Amino acid sequence: MMDTGMSIDTGFNSERMQEMEALYSDALLKDVVPFWLRFSLDHKHGGYLTCLDREGDVYGTDKAMWLQCREAWMFSRLYNALEKRPEWLEAAHLGVEFISRHGFDADGRMFFLLTQEGEPLRKRRYLFTECFGIIAFAEYARASGREEYLHRAKELYRLVVDLYRKPDALEPKVFPETRLMKSLAAPMMLLATTQELRAFDTDPLYGIIAGETSREIIRDFLKPDEKAMLETVGPNGERLDIPEGRCVNPGHAVETAWFLMREGMFQGDEMMVETACRGLSWSLELGWDDDHGGLLAFVDIEGKPPERLEWDMKLWWPHTEALYASLLAYHSTHERRFLAWFESIHSYAFARFPDEEYGEWFGYLHRDGTTANELKGSTWKGMFHIPRAMLNIMLLLREIMDREDDDTIKEG
Amino acid sequence: MMDTGMSIDTGFNSERMQEMEALYSDALLKDVVPFWLRFSLDHKHGGYLTCLDREGDVYGTDKAMWLQCREAWMFSRLYNALEKRPEWLEAAHLGVEFISRHGFDADGRMFFLLTQEGEPLRKRRYLFTECFGIIAFAEYARASGREEYLHRAKELYRLVVDLYRKPDALEPKVFPETRLMKSLAAPMMLLATTQELRAFDTDPLYGIIAGETSREIIRDFLKPDEKAMLETVGPNGERLDIPEGRCVNPGHAVETAWFLMREGMFQGDEMMVETACRGLSWSLELGWDDDHGGLLAFVDIEGKPPERLEWDMKLWWPHTEALYASLLAYHSTHERRFLAWFESIHSYAFARFPDEEYGEWFGYLHRDGTTANELKGSTWKGMFHIPRAMLNIMLLLREIMDREDDDTIKEG
Repeated sequence: MMDTGMSIDTGFNSERMQEMEALYSDALLKDVVPFWLRFSLDHKHGGYLTCLDREGDVYGTDKAMWLQCREAWMFSRLYNALEKRPEWLEAAHLGVEFISRHGFDADGRMFFLLTQEGEPLRKRRYLFTECFGIIAFAEYARASGREEYLHRAKELYRLVVDLYRKPDALEPKVFPETRLMKSLAAPMMLLATTQELRAFDTDPLYGIIAGETSREIIRDFLKPDEKAMLETVGPNGERLDIPEGRCVNPGHAVETAWFLMREGMFQGDEMMVETACRGLSWSLELGWDDDHGGLLAFVDIEGKPPERLEWDMKLWWPHTEALYASLLAYHSTHERRFLAWFESIHSYAFARFPDEEYGEWFGYLHRDGTTANELKGSTWKGMFHIPRAMLNIMLLLREIMDREDDDTIKEG
Repeated sequence: MMDTGMSIDTGFNSERMQEMEALYSDALLKDVVPFWLRFSLDHKHGGYLTCLDREGDVYGTDKAMWLQCREAWMFSRLYNALEKRPEWLEAAHLGVEFISRHGFDADGRMFFLLTQEGEPLRKRRYLFTECFGIIAFAEYARASGREEYLHRAKELYRLVVDLYRKPDALEPKVFPETRLMKSLAAPMMLLATTQELRAFDTDPLYGIIAGETSREIIRDFLKPDEKAMLETVGPNGERLDIPEGRCVNPGHAVETAWFLMREGMFQGDEMMVETACRGLSWSLELGWDDDHGGLLAFVDIEGKPPERLEWDMKLWWPHTEALYASLLAYHSTHERRFLAWFESIHSYAFARFPDEEYGEWFGYLHRDGTTANELKGSTWKGMFHIPRAMLNIMLLLREIMDREDDDTIKEG
């Protein structure tokens, strides 16, 4: 057994919190954001170039719409949450303009992949691109003050909700006459999208959808008997005895856990927060690799062979999601085990993912922690999970420290 | 740099050939075939269970039609080429019956995935399932003497050829208005299918299609400037400056090389054999991992980051294809470098893929040669590449040894 980086829980004193806040703030503002600002803006055609090699050079020019929307969201979010830097707003504008001009099909749905110039290459059956479009438009509307983008976000949201409620509307991958399945990603994405939009707008629909999706996740995907948040279940949460039905995607599961925690806090529903923290614990325990440290990409809950080739790789995004989720769980429950998880994942991730030489993070490690691919961006890895987690962690640490200062003042 | 198993070329004397023939024959008949006979036959519902874990236990019951057809072909082929063992014919029958009864949609095309009982789960846009259906029916017709299966094979072949010649007939993944692409897999599969069917039947169409597809591969996919057999090109063989357009799949390339060698030999076209051997050399040189040995799964010809997560994994089937291709190239050209390749790949593969404890081969190794997944079968790995290569190698070695015996007799 190797040193997996599991740290002994030494508590989280204010010195450690300050140190962490500085570390995440520096990583975000001196490393990650500058990398994308410098290399990804496509000033010629608009939007972002995300297929970047280790040094930031472009190796592919196609524009994946998930990443166009996510990067536009991220720059807008930095502007709204952290500081009114004009270059962040301009960078957000570059993406939102490109998305508006080229991202939509005649039926109101969005394309999945465009050329550098904006010609459509692919459209897919899933609604995820639209979800990322909604959050990009809404966050940019706040940053720019351009109300019309909030309207576009709301329009698109209604389209997504309509299609979500009519499962027959989009052709499923597997014939529904033979097998009905549903995946965690769908309610998870709709919940997160609703939470984002709700921050800028009031509409009774948000409460209804956030309620429906969070209840659906808890009722159908969280399995106390198996101590697992499953990736795929039957239409009423039935366990499916197929490889997909035994599969846990620890990254998705911990991401869902923090969306649920956030929902519980918003609704003042302590039970939901507790349930979410339980789901987080299960997912970290299932996903953690006792031999080499880090979170596995896929796990079969019965220990049978996972069919995904990359099942034992260590990807960047499950780690960023686990970092924020465990810190939020610690903040919500004051349970030290979540702090221990935060520290373990932090040491694992910061020892392996950041590229000390050219900046930003590697995305793909072998099981043993060695780098499997040096790319910084692709049609899947872009400016999203890493800066979002860093920003969320910074803001949460500041909140905790502020409250402790207040407590000290009150006690003093 | 590690010991990559690259052997010094010591020639291929008759002792070494006998030793190799015995080794492949034992591996085929005492290890690989018994494993599938023992664990994969579904006597209850017909067809084969291919999702088998390390010990042969079933971890998933869905039936991927590629593998149903390939296993039915393989048992028939063993029966026709090696020995009239009744259990091989029965095993072939089990698959062919299942395929006939459940594998076809109303439009004459085949499904991609069925349940254990034979209910359809997925149908895909590609014609590969149909190609495997053709070779299964044709080989089984010969084994069983049931002529009607040859007729079914020919019917299905005409459907595939029709659709192949009408590129608009099947919806492409990427909008053709924006980007036209074609992939090596399509002509490669049609060539191989034609070669198999031609062994049992005469029809001028076979010569036409074998000619068209082999010329298309040589003209459009083999790039002397890059010394590469590309996986994806434009409709007239144009280089595409996108990650897909720089991608070589060494497994596909070496497999295509032996289909082309076989075609050149059939047509008595020495130039085609030479061209195929050149394509084989390029692909082995591009694919070989100088650091750890073995063949990489994907390579970018400009050294840019490959987008496929598994790019640096060592998979079973590129190695089995490279073994037979390099031996066939040695047989055709008498060039010692092909023998050196055969020996290097042989030592690499036999040191890492076979499971000494439970039999058959592991399918998925990390770059460093450690096992990444212990499964023996899945919806992709079945009873095909390993036994096919072992059988082809045995038969080729016997042919070479027989000829040398004849030569000795003539000289004596």
